[in-house]
Amino acid sequence: MPDRDASLASVLRPTMTKLSRKHKLDDIQTPSVLVDIGCVRRNISRFQSYSNAHGLKVRPHIKTHKLPAIAEMQIAAGAVGITCQKVSEAQAMVSGSERISDVLITYNILGEAKLRALDALSRKVRLSVVADSQQVVDGLAGVFAAASEPLSVLVECNTGADRCGVSSPAEAAMLAKYISNSPGLHFGGLMTYPPIGGTARVQTFLADTKALIEAEGLAVPVVSSGGSPDMYSAHLAPVVTEYRPGTYVYNDRSLVLGGRCKWSDCALTVVTTVVSVPAPERAIIDAGSKILTTDLLELNGYGHVLGRPDITIDQLSEEHGRLRSSGAINLSVGQRLRIVPNHACAVANMVDTVIATGLNNGPEVWPVSARGKVI
Amino acid sequence: MPDRDASLASVLRPTMTKLSRKHKLDDIQTPSVLVDIGCVRRNISRFQSYSNAHGLKVRPHIKTHKLPAIAEMQIAAGAVGITCQKVSEAQAMVSGSERISDVLITYNILGEAKLRALDALSRKVRLSVVADSQQVVDGLAGVFAAASEPLSVLVECNTGADRCGVSSPAEAAMLAKYISNSPGLHFGGLMTYPPIGGTARVQTFLADTKALIEAEGLAVPVVSSGGSPDMYSAHLAPVVTEYRPGTYVYNDRSLVLGGRCKWSDCALTVVTTVVSVPAPERAIIDAGSKILTTDLLELNGYGHVLGRPDITIDQLSEEHGRLRSSGAINLSVGQRLRIVPNHACAVANMVDTVIATGLNNGPEVWPVSARGKVI
Repeated sequence: MPDRDASLASVLRPTMTKLSRKHKLDDIQTPSVLVDIGCVRRNISRFQSYSNAHGLKVRPHIKTHKLPAIAEMQIAAGAVGITCQKVSEAQAMVSGSERISDVLITYNILGEAKLRALDALSRKVRLSVVADSQQVVDGLAGVFAAASEPLSVLVECNTGADRCGVSSPAEAAMLAKYISNSPGLHFGGLMTYPPIGGTARVQTFLADTKALIEAEGLAVPVVSSGGSPDMYSAHLAPVVTEYRPGTYVYNDRSLVLGGRCKWSDCALTVVTTVVSVPAPERAIIDAGSKILTTDLLELNGYGHVLGRPDITIDQLSEEHGRLRSSGAINLSVGQRLRIVPNHACAVANMVDTVIATGLNNGPEVWPVSARGKVI
Repeated sequence: MPDRDASLASVLRPTMTKLSRKHKLDDIQTPSVLVDIGCVRRNISRFQSYSNAHGLKVRPHIKTHKLPAIAEMQIAAGAVGITCQKVSEAQAMVSGSERISDVLITYNILGEAKLRALDALSRKVRLSVVADSQQVVDGLAGVFAAASEPLSVLVECNTGADRCGVSSPAEAAMLAKYISNSPGLHFGGLMTYPPIGGTARVQTFLADTKALIEAEGLAVPVVSSGGSPDMYSAHLAPVVTEYRPGTYVYNDRSLVLGGRCKWSDCALTVVTTVVSVPAPERAIIDAGSKILTTDLLELNGYGHVLGRPDITIDQLSEEHGRLRSSGAINLSVGQRLRIVPNHACAVANMVDTVIATGLNNGPEVWPVSARGKVI
């Protein structure tokens, strides 16, 4: 898999391309996160075409980019709405774009303040949420019983990731009925976040569940699955009506090494400076865990140095990354490198702004509006 | 090692204690980071007393708290100044407090924009930096040759952590001389960040280096070492004149499990809500890698649930933490828990604000001013 050296060179070498606010690319201080918008558009378009061909709706998870502007690109390409994980994330996205009008929050919402925020959000956009227990449903009903429109609630099903979700079709059917009998709520369908390689299990679990629920006279309008690693196998689980890919918009080292894409499909990179070359086989960069994160995703090392497959990032402290080469490291102090991180979503969450490249009028600094929204 | 259950109960149960801006503690949304200021003061005071007894100066590393208010407590207790890792971090701290007047940046500063910022900072506070190569020294001299006061530059020495730093006393002595011959610069002494257990090596490396440099007629005014794990062994390296502890101010699971302190010495905790109990031995909380981080520090699991030593946090995704118990998990949806994270410094960097508890007039929301300052 070739690095995209031409594109790399254009960032690492000073160019005349203007940053908004009169910055130039060579003025970028390191470490910074770059997002290649041309690459983003290609990634969006590729999966939208696949989904169109298979009659699958796309509802991208914005946890990867946290940027209203990119959500707008996904919607313009054909996405039916967006997915968020937390209420505060949804608030930030909805405030950031008038084109976001349909939001699924794939999380059990608990607690009075969050439920009130959910209620407020439901007056602005078409909103749906999930639940995997009666306690969560009861909390939602407590607030939405008084609402003018019922809230759509999907049942989260555990298809093997062993995170949240009911563990059997029978439990799912029971909870669906419970939702449909709760004041202010509407049973919206089924939702799962499967483990990698879980497509077959998604089909059997959700098809069985759907049949059970329909047998009781209840419609199952939406069956929602997600996960970038298996997104091009989504058609092998035909029960699924909508798909929630997240990482696909940027891609990352985990997806490249998993054989899901190429380095040239990676839209997010970290630009960094070599600050020390203290030994022939070792160099230190100014990107540490505060930008690359310590997410390993079962990989060896903390990222891929573009153009240097011989280098391993073998240790991170907060502000230092340590590079080791199998041979001579051949780097000099002050030299810039570009890194594809293990996990793009986590990196986007570390920075207040990213630098968007590949735009018609030159690079721009974009605030990551939904960064750090854990509430 | 006992959990501090009394203190725990006061946060997990609704109390009448007022948050500033008219919030109450039971209104805290989860996940949030709590900082017990009483505990912070005890941690600061304990190490300051030890250092006073040994004639050691204390220069705390603010990377752990990133809060001007806590730096002021450290200075009031007797610290000679603060340590920062990056220029932007120093800028945020200096803007945040008029009592911060002495800053050491323990990082190789490279690049025109950062050097200009360093120059500006040097007009506000007594500033020193480090270098481990002639390239870094040349960059500093390029800017400070024109300054009214020389910049103090310490030589960073590698005493076994294999991050930055020159690798031998001879190299250190050569670089010291180079600094002292550079226009606008003053040789400020030696600096190291040793590996855990590296105190003996610190003594031999730095004592040898100091002797070499002094033999050439150059004074070595400061010998600076750091690291919380071995801070109470600092007197075993008598060559060291000042110490830079960071994590000690909060402590964390890595220091407790390393035998360095007790759970009751941990000032920073994450308050979280159980959002799902999908199986008898498993529960899911609303704190994931976006607040706990995936830092393992060679430990098993991602944090310690106070009061529940039977529980392992065995998996994190961005917004979910998975708890497993050796027996029945015995948790219910909506229940709140408090977690001591593996690595307190990394957690403080994930949030825009922390909730300071243990204050005379009730809890307050404090912005983490130097969060995310990677430049």
